[in-house]
Amino acid sequence: MSNTQKHKTTVDIYGQQYVIMGTESPSHIRLVASLVDDKMREISSKNPSLDVSKLAVLTAVNAVNDYIKIKDQFDRLQTELLKEKD
Amino acid sequence: MSNTQKHKTTVDIYGQQYVIMGTESPSHIRLVASLVDDKMREISSKNPSLDVSKLAVLTAVNAVNDYIKIKDQFDRLQTELLKEKD
Repeated sequence: MSNTQKHKTTVDIYGQQYVIMGTESPSHIRLVASLVDDKMREISSKNPSLDVSKLAVLTAVNAVNDYIKIKDQFDRLQTELLKEKD
Repeated sequence: MSNTQKHKTTVDIYGQQYVIMGTESPSHIRLVASLVDDKMREISSKNPSLDVSKLAVLTAVNAVNDYIKIKDQFDRLQTELLKEKD
């Protein structure tokens, strides 16, 4: 990657502003923020009594769970591809 | 999948207990919870002034970002595998 320039992107998640620093493009950060916002609203609609910090923790649990699942599929696919190339 | 039994797992994340319901095994849920806990502590150590809800939102942002990246790699690998099989 040649693009290691740091960007500062302001996003709105669940009614609160966050300044995100990173090498990702502002459009990528805005996409991530909107997915987190959507997921928080989805979990909140199913559990209206949750406070914001619990809601955010459960959103993080959800996202890490999705990450582990796809990482597992990715690893299996990579093994399969290596076998195909043999 | 034949195992669609629902489990109820109690986990501790950043000093707070959560009851997680789902078809995943309790050991998988505990792994996910410990990863979220680790990430929250890592972000907190770099940003000691953040309150818990902002910390949790940034942890969710982090996890969703990781998810999108690996999903993108997964999709590319899948395309590559399909070409190999042709």
